[in-house]
Amino acid sequence: MPGYLKKYLTQKMVISNEELENILVCFKKLQSKKNQILIHPNKICKHLFFVQKGCLRVVCTRDDGQEWTRQIAIENDFITIFPSFLEQTISRSYLQTVEASDVFYISYSNFKKLNNIVPNWREFYTSILEQTYVNSIKRIEKLIAMDGKHLYEDFKINHPELLKRLPNKISASYLGISQETLSRLKTKK
Amino acid sequence: MPGYLKKYLTQKMVISNEELENILVCFKKLQSKKNQILIHPNKICKHLFFVQKGCLRVVCTRDDGQEWTRQIAIENDFITIFPSFLEQTISRSYLQTVEASDVFYISYSNFKKLNNIVPNWREFYTSILEQTYVNSIKRIEKLIAMDGKHLYEDFKINHPELLKRLPNKISASYLGISQETLSRLKTKK
Repeated sequence: MPGYLKKYLTQKMVISNEELENILVCFKKLQSKKNQILIHPNKICKHLFFVQKGCLRVVCTRDDGQEWTRQIAIENDFITIFPSFLEQTISRSYLQTVEASDVFYISYSNFKKLNNIVPNWREFYTSILEQTYVNSIKRIEKLIAMDGKHLYEDFKINHPELLKRLPNKISASYLGISQETLSRLKTKK
Repeated sequence: MPGYLKKYLTQKMVISNEELENILVCFKKLQSKKNQILIHPNKICKHLFFVQKGCLRVVCTRDDGQEWTRQIAIENDFITIFPSFLEQTISRSYLQTVEASDVFYISYSNFKKLNNIVPNWREFYTSILEQTYVNSIKRIEKLIAMDGKHLYEDFKINHPELLKRLPNKISASYLGISQETLSRLKTKK
């Protein structure tokens, strides 16, 4: 029984035992090592993930071959390659564990089924979607508005634990700056 | 009676007359000239807009004072400064008409009310949110992955009418390139 997910969901929504069972039965558990690819590039993303423990990231590839980290998820976050998952189309991006991770995952067909049969799940999903979209907008605005130094300082203030936890290479690729610039900013008084 | 909006909604969702009336009564109509600011910077965004005719854009300001266009809406699109609208917090961005525009708008309180009392509206809103979020992700991925030339060609293929319709200054600020670069790309054979 996915006890962790059950506890999380009952804290997040008002839900009957029957509805809760309908949700939990759709999720499977997966334990993954560090740096494992959970969704490969050039595939259709068929799963939505929930992080119990660990860290995952969505990686995109630029035209020049350089990779950058579009999204990061840690404990209690949902993550997927959303355009590919929603539209069931092939994506160039991939989903990778940054740390050894314990995750729950649900298939696209079960996700659609839950949206139809459990109104409270649909409401919960909408609120997650709203917050993820808002975070995504704030992230674009920062990436475009701020220079490297300002981006680093903002990240340090808003995500101090994440900055300690992530390898420099991944923090830099999330901030859109070089590893050298990040190292210089980190050591600056 | 907002006949245009009524027709649009009945094409988009299965809905009873009573539900439709509950929605329509929440929307007001506004006719606006070109270049009018509908939501000012440093304010809380209290409305969601639907474009019947015309063109609107969300404008953000970079640290160096340069403006850039984060989002564009034309006929049958919804638009708002989403983080400010959802969280009812102050935003530095503003919402402006690019052309003389006819829009419908709904207040935050009525929007929340509709989500609670009209399940079909909530479902419709979720699908709009999903699509807008997907478009936003695709936009970030392109902005980060592509150079100016590639961005222009992609925009020309996917939005040929918009490219003709928008002033060069706004197309350039949407693509994150200078007006000079855009003019050069437009005249290139």
